[in-house]
Amino acid sequence: MNGRNADMSLPGVPWRASVLTIFPEMFPGPLGMALSGKALDDERWSLDAINLRDFTRDRHKSVDDTPFGGGAGMVMRPDVIGAAVDFAHPAGDSRPLVFLTPRGRPLDQPMVETFASAPGIVALCGRYEGVDQRAIEAKGFFEVSVGDFVLSGGELAAMILLDAVVRLLPGVVGRRESVVEESFSSGLLEYPQYTRPQLWDGRKVPEVLLSGNHARIRAWRMEMALQSTRERRPDLLKNAS
Amino acid sequence: MNGRNADMSLPGVPWRASVLTIFPEMFPGPLGMALSGKALDDERWSLDAINLRDFTRDRHKSVDDTPFGGGAGMVMRPDVIGAAVDFAHPAGDSRPLVFLTPRGRPLDQPMVETFASAPGIVALCGRYEGVDQRAIEAKGFFEVSVGDFVLSGGELAAMILLDAVVRLLPGVVGRRESVVEESFSSGLLEYPQYTRPQLWDGRKVPEVLLSGNHARIRAWRMEMALQSTRERRPDLLKNAS
Repeated sequence: MNGRNADMSLPGVPWRASVLTIFPEMFPGPLGMALSGKALDDERWSLDAINLRDFTRDRHKSVDDTPFGGGAGMVMRPDVIGAAVDFAHPAGDSRPLVFLTPRGRPLDQPMVETFASAPGIVALCGRYEGVDQRAIEAKGFFEVSVGDFVLSGGELAAMILLDAVVRLLPGVVGRRESVVEESFSSGLLEYPQYTRPQLWDGRKVPEVLLSGNHARIRAWRMEMALQSTRERRPDLLKNAS
Repeated sequence: MNGRNADMSLPGVPWRASVLTIFPEMFPGPLGMALSGKALDDERWSLDAINLRDFTRDRHKSVDDTPFGGGAGMVMRPDVIGAAVDFAHPAGDSRPLVFLTPRGRPLDQPMVETFASAPGIVALCGRYEGVDQRAIEAKGFFEVSVGDFVLSGGELAAMILLDAVVRLLPGVVGRRESVVEESFSSGLLEYPQYTRPQLWDGRKVPEVLLSGNHARIRAWRMEMALQSTRERRPDLLKNAS
């Protein structure tokens, strides 16, 4: 065992992500680089992208069809989704099934922590106008939204969720980078940060940060975190600790 | 001019995205595929990823340094950010400067529409503990958050923003896929969707959708959209039209 691993609680089995998508070639993509890519190389997590088209049974490999009741757009077929889920999530697999959709519960840091403490997830990425609601209900998907906007598909939403989870897995963020006080861990926005040069473009670093007085610095940062939250996100103050 | 372009209002100049990042190799990544990739090939938008390391002036090419006032993590230097912005966003460039940060204003569909109607954007992706606040203020960055969770960096957040914008650009979403009623355009969650097969796994499509009665279908969908929003996102009802 090398020094890098010595201070880490290495779990026996990597956190395991399966992604159901019609664009498996998008994965790992950005998740194969930087922090999450290093963690993938280190086998702290695994990722398999499963092509929904492999579960079609017609010669056109159709994953979608027109919506009952009319309307624009196409809807993903329940039989295709169902077969893919049966393959990716066999009996005994305890990973949560997650469907990324703007109809879902908004992703937040406590939810990310819950997913990180599970053995992994199976994420379904929709395209077109959505997914047949029967497949969502029959398979017990937990519906998650990454925000109140419309994407061309769930793939980037799944990547966001995975990136947020992976950085919480044991051993992924090293001691040097790790942070005790970061956005949302206290329920407040983070305080502003400053680094060298001390004078830049005529702008100084706030005096208090140069004082060496740790109690004053802590108080200033808390005040700034509160002030930013009050000004920018008063909605967060209701739940802040 | 071919048939595909005939029904589109082709703007003279593509919508132009510049991304400032220490991981330019992440781009276009997923944005080079599917809908946004096709739009990139069709020159409906352009994307250049600018490496922040090219604007460092020390031999280690340091983009970051320790925070004044102490604490874990590293902060991106204002001089490096400043030089990169001066390069990517010269005088006369009217594109908004956007910094992706959990301290920002939450991205929503009206904001996406505003960005889509601009000539493009310049997006700054943070890594580490954040970016020196003086650079944000001096350059007039508009701070945008994609959600109340912590990512390993701003790159995936920038991709989310770009994906949401690109599908709104003229000619990107074809008539077949286009939707009048979609999530958030009315301020409500979307109603559930159903497609073939009509009977799947013992589950039927709701009767009303097979009725052919368009007024009843419209009423049912509105009721379902309202019901989903009431159950899942009562916070949205305050602003719904």
